Amino acid sequence: MSLTRREFLMRAGQAGGYSAAFVLMQSLGLLAIPEAAGEASPLRLVDGKGARVVILGGGIAGLVSAYELGKAGWSCTILEARQRPGGRNWSIRAGTQVEFTDGARQTCTFDEGHYFNAGPARLPSTHHTMLGYCRELGVALEVEVNSSRSALMQSNLLNSGVAVPERRVVNDTRGHVSELLAKCIKRGALDQEITADDRERMIEFLRQYGDLNPDLLFRGTNRSGYKVPPGATAQLPVVNAPLAMHQLLDADLWQGMLVEEVLEWQPTMFQPIGGMDRIPFAFASRLDSVIRYGAVVSRIRQSDSGVTVTYSERSASSQAGETRLIEADYCICAMPLTVARTLDADFSAPIRAILDTVQYDSAYKIAWEAPRFWEKEANIFGGISYLQQPVDLVWYPSARLFSERGIVIGGYSIELGPAVGALPSLLDKADPAERSMTEHGYIFGHLPSIEAKLDASRRSVELLHPGHGKDLSKPIYVSWGHIPFNLGSWISLGWNDEKALATLQSPDRRVYFAGDHTSRLVGWQEGAALSAYRVINQLGERIQ
Amino acid sequence: MSLTRREFLMRAGQAGGYSAAFVLMQSLGLLAIPEAAGEASPLRLVDGKGARVVILGGGIAGLVSAYELGKAGWSCTILEARQRPGGRNWSIRAGTQVEFTDGARQTCTFDEGHYFNAGPARLPSTHHTMLGYCRELGVALEVEVNSSRSALMQSNLLNSGVAVPERRVVNDTRGHVSELLAKCIKRGALDQEITADDRERMIEFLRQYGDLNPDLLFRGTNRSGYKVPPGATAQLPVVNAPLAMHQLLDADLWQGMLVEEVLEWQPTMFQPIGGMDRIPFAFASRLDSVIRYGAVVSRIRQSDSGVTVTYSERSASSQAGETRLIEADYCICAMPLTVARTLDADFSAPIRAILDTVQYDSAYKIAWEAPRFWEKEANIFGGISYLQQPVDLVWYPSARLFSERGIVIGGYSIELGPAVGALPSLLDKADPAERSMTEHGYIFGHLPSIEAKLDASRRSVELLHPGHGKDLSKPIYVSWGHIPFNLGSWISLGWNDEKALATLQSPDRRVYFAGDHTSRLVGWQEGAALSAYRVINQLGERIQ
Repeated sequence: MSLTRREFLMRAGQAGGYSAAFVLMQSLGLLAIPEAAGEASPLRLVDGKGARVVILGGGIAGLVSAYELGKAGWSCTILEARQRPGGRNWSIRAGTQVEFTDGARQTCTFDEGHYFNAGPARLPSTHHTMLGYCRELGVALEVEVNSSRSALMQSNLLNSGVAVPERRVVNDTRGHVSELLAKCIKRGALDQEITADDRERMIEFLRQYGDLNPDLLFRGTNRSGYKVPPGATAQLPVVNAPLAMHQLLDADLWQGMLVEEVLEWQPTMFQPIGGMDRIPFAFASRLDSVIRYGAVVSRIRQSDSGVTVTYSERSASSQAGETRLIEADYCICAMPLTVARTLDADFSAPIRAILDTVQYDSAYKIAWEAPRFWEKEANIFGGISYLQQPVDLVWYPSARLFSERGIVIGGYSIELGPAVGALPSLLDKADPAERSMTEHGYIFGHLPSIEAKLDASRRSVELLHPGHGKDLSKPIYVSWGHIPFNLGSWISLGWNDEKALATLQSPDRRVYFAGDHTSRLVGWQEGAALSAYRVINQLGERIQ
Repeated sequence: MSLTRREFLMRAGQAGGYSAAFVLMQSLGLLAIPEAAGEASPLRLVDGKGARVVILGGGIAGLVSAYELGKAGWSCTILEARQRPGGRNWSIRAGTQVEFTDGARQTCTFDEGHYFNAGPARLPSTHHTMLGYCRELGVALEVEVNSSRSALMQSNLLNSGVAVPERRVVNDTRGHVSELLAKCIKRGALDQEITADDRERMIEFLRQYGDLNPDLLFRGTNRSGYKVPPGATAQLPVVNAPLAMHQLLDADLWQGMLVEEVLEWQPTMFQPIGGMDRIPFAFASRLDSVIRYGAVVSRIRQSDSGVTVTYSERSASSQAGETRLIEADYCICAMPLTVARTLDADFSAPIRAILDTVQYDSAYKIAWEAPRFWEKEANIFGGISYLQQPVDLVWYPSARLFSERGIVIGGYSIELGPAVGALPSLLDKADPAERSMTEHGYIFGHLPSIEAKLDASRRSVELLHPGHGKDLSKPIYVSWGHIPFNLGSWISLGWNDEKALATLQSPDRRVYFAGDHTSRLVGWQEGAALSAYRVINQLGERIQ
């Protein structure tokens, strides 16, 4: 969530100006724009003639690399520290162990058939590469309902703290905005900007946009739902009275309200039926002996002719293992940089500089099993409720709609806990809007125990669905900064860090870096897959 | 669609004022509002002790009536003119015959497994009654994606007539509105209305709302998508240049843009897996011998003690049939009023007056089978594209996403064809906005032949998806005004016709009227079901 939040803010703020700058440069002819750009990274496979590639990390970037290179005659080996593929693409089910770096341990006890996507949980319809793999590998998808007008919004400063359906915040806000702008136009405040003809058309547009009354006043709209719904008797329907703009400003629920307009979160979105990890397992089933599980890398050495990687091979039940060496012509380092920096590796100085200073966010998610009170009592089928609370969202399942029980996410955000070193500097750098958002993550991250965090999660669910906090059971708390072999959820690098990105996108002699952190789609599987395409293309060019 | 359009306009215009009036009256204490209103028509079943009820019409209202009364010891018989239950709830598949009153005949030749919901095609999540029946009767549902930001909008006056994704119209419009309002606030145009503190917060809100740049100007937003998408190479992303507000006003695509905010069309929406008629067939499977198919009613006579209905019983293959009589204690007339008015019935004068003057709209839908070019080439998965053309929408299937072929709706609107008598008066009464909308329906309805209508449909698809008009095959055109036993799609009655509604909601001696046309949810199955609840409650009170 927080990636998005930060990205969201960046885009709304600096990046809004950033993208605007590009539009301007483009229109001035200062930027060369390909006529039909299509994909930024089309895949070009070149016969590898048996060239050996060792791939560090069996997440999406590593899996795509091995899968595509394998098609073209390259000899790949993936070294994966865990006993499963996927990396952050991790679906937790009954029996799954969640272990933190500090030794905390949880075991999932969900009922049969339920799952919790602790990492990625949705596929935008614009992410062609990942959707293409689902098609190619036979991973069945279903719609992930990412926004629903029946989902709730809660602030202590709005409606006496009683949660209201999103439809009221969205449509009442639009109503107020339309009334105010219509008023200005009628007063002549925009006579410089708008022709008389357009003024009239603007007024007519605003009347529709905001559902204004004939006097161009916003006095409520049935778009915001009914206090008494229309039926089939003499009873007249009564629409909800509008929320006051002043209160809406107090509540400051804009981020949640605008989530549906962030490009990657716009409908239509998808999820694999049965869990996001259907994707890595589908890759893995095609990669057979290419993946070595339990292979914990410790050392990388490059020479003029190849790369040697040292790793220990561990069984599922043991923390120690046999030390092994693997020799290859090239290496794709597709592990998080937080892990790469712990290796004994002869990286170049620019790469080492990045590893030494790079910051990762630590996002968390909390999942609960519960009876579907949100569907039965609040007509909420999928979508996300937003709160101005330490746990600031509740995300409802799109899986198995209408069934008895489901997995609900009670919190997904950046968690700025003590284990994450970057907190003070991040706070220092944050702009006011980001700080107010960060504040909540901060409060959550500094809650003293897992129990306190679960209590905060339960409290947010209770605020949205009074009486149902007690219905939550079988919690699982995943804090990515504390997960071994991840040590963070995603890189804090932004698109403005062009220099760092360029370094990561260039080979360090025979080592190539892949992963969403080397793309402009940080936190998305699509970015990981496209980063693999870039590396594959670079390798192809090299051996041609 | 057209119901919605008309309703939409009514709500945006007059009804905006109407609902606003109620909010005002409510706040002034002039209207008694139940504290917790809940459903307008909760069902109260009373033991019928074998009382006989004859139900005319096996659409949703008739089916719900028989199903619920049957639970409570009433002895029901449904007379259904067709050989299937459901009325307008009609899913057309391979082999289905579509016959018009003028003798035109089509036979569906879809591939196995495809269907076309010629009538209702979506269930809002706020329609508890219908969703409850799906649950109770075991009708499996899936998400119906009713709006998608990747769907397209087309006007000859926008972007040189080249269709643009909905995300650009939505987000560029919001950007322009935000910039203009921010400008006005900075100029002091709203100093009377807004406190200094709120002014600052409004500006910050508008910055986020419209994705304005630091100078509070709208210069494009990545919410509207990219000309060059972000990838994993050095290539910088480039956002789409914003559409000019002047062009957006020219294009006048507001109705399509705001569809997603009409209460009944807000996400999350559903559809039965396999076709909407899974609902009536599920009812029918519980009603067994209660339904007499091929029973064409001709006469109704009431006495102090009962009702006698005359009908002819026809086989599937014959237009003539044996004349039969059925006696009952009560009658529920759940057929369209366009059909009821053709009966030899001793209705009261007020009912007769309604039957003599009532107007029904004639909506049409055209369905095609085609390869899923909209998914593969345009990332459109469900949702609806809108055009300013004679065929003004294209609705993509939510069923079997990602499969090879699908059924796409090329046109759904009111069709004001020669068979519908009300055209001139409707045009006279229409307000300018409605007239411009009606114009398109008019053009379509007056095309001279089915072939010309199919050509218009194909042309709209071609405008949205150049090169793919030719991929459309196996058309089916359903024009509800021409369908026997319907003679219209829905009543033209609005909520403001309280007197007519009150008459239809009161029994005419022993005859009770049910159907969505007797509810405030015209054109929705929910209205039909709630109308059945009203009648059941009235019958219960009567025999107690």
